Amino acid sequence: MRIGMLGTGMVGTGLATKLVQLGHEVMVGSREKGNSNAVEWVKKNGANASNGTFSDAAAFGEIVFNCTHGADSLNALNMAGEGNLDGKILVDVANPLDFSTGELRLTVSNTDSLGEQIQRAFPRAKVVKTLNTMGVPIMVNPSMLPGEHTVFMSGDDEGAKAKVLEILKSFGWKDAVDLGGIKSARGAEAILLLWIHLYGKMPDGKFNYNIVRG
Amino acid sequence: MRIGMLGTGMVGTGLATKLVQLGHEVMVGSREKGNSNAVEWVKKNGANASNGTFSDAAAFGEIVFNCTHGADSLNALNMAGEGNLDGKILVDVANPLDFSTGELRLTVSNTDSLGEQIQRAFPRAKVVKTLNTMGVPIMVNPSMLPGEHTVFMSGDDEGAKAKVLEILKSFGWKDAVDLGGIKSARGAEAILLLWIHLYGKMPDGKFNYNIVRG
Repeated sequence: MRIGMLGTGMVGTGLATKLVQLGHEVMVGSREKGNSNAVEWVKKNGANASNGTFSDAAAFGEIVFNCTHGADSLNALNMAGEGNLDGKILVDVANPLDFSTGELRLTVSNTDSLGEQIQRAFPRAKVVKTLNTMGVPIMVNPSMLPGEHTVFMSGDDEGAKAKVLEILKSFGWKDAVDLGGIKSARGAEAILLLWIHLYGKMPDGKFNYNIVRG
Repeated sequence: MRIGMLGTGMVGTGLATKLVQLGHEVMVGSREKGNSNAVEWVKKNGANASNGTFSDAAAFGEIVFNCTHGADSLNALNMAGEGNLDGKILVDVANPLDFSTGELRLTVSNTDSLGEQIQRAFPRAKVVKTLNTMGVPIMVNPSMLPGEHTVFMSGDDEGAKAKVLEILKSFGWKDAVDLGGIKSARGAEAILLLWIHLYGKMPDGKFNYNIVRG
């Protein structure tokens, strides 16, 4: 499948590498095409790896991933272009983090979420929030942690969630919990307020949540 | 130990019953002493069970639990009286839930928490936030769920957290994660924004989070 990856940080390139390894064609997109992270990533990842602007990557992808900084995501998606997202699955991995005060706060929370903001701004995209609740090594290799643990999905389009579930399974995820519509992204994003304290205790980031059922 | 239990709903009476079973003397406190939940609870729980006002219960307890509705907790604690809380461990189990709009939102979140509000309002109490992230049957009987799962603690006083940890262990908790100071209550309270969606999928409430470590 052709995948457009918006964002060339650790999350974007980490997911892009895994997707290339799984046989997909991936174009990573950045604000400027010449982005050094992107160029370096393309060099390492062979013929199915390419780079371009946000707009190039969104146009290229049958599915588009948003791995930009959450506080900048709406701006980046506007640069990607609404027409390039129309009718497509938009996998939103971003977290609306704000460290400007010296401690983590979310730019949106409780009564709204980044996932919902993106869905409202791009009503013809099929937004699926997922993978935002763990570090990138775990995202793409869940078996690095022992036993069962959980990834969440939120989105209004059932077909889009089914497709994203296939991708998650191809990464090795066994327990994907569908939280419900895109409003439930409030829950998945709020986890970051807990995650930051767990990360303080376990700075290697090697932890995740498991939902234990009775 | 003498314990003052503020709140006579399911959480307050559920915890109070467990504490009596463990040999503690418990006074449950409510706005009006004649509260029918409290009277019924005392009848069922023998010589170590008593009831009174919020103020009576706070004065009685060497340790005080806040199990009132989160949106009313500061008011209830003011009725309990600052002098009755001075120097005591105040175990805050409440969640600042607001369903007035028809969907869950928190009355405080992200940049503040109920735990912090209580600590600021009662600076000489030793506030420990815990047990707010699961249903009461699991709080008092964690072994009802299979395998390991986690309870969180937040608080500024290390001695108070050590004492609360003893109580959690007496309930059967094996994995209590100390998130840090009372500010980390933001994380534990934010979980409710996820919990509500999981509860929608599992309305028997028989689930909890486990922190899986690598």
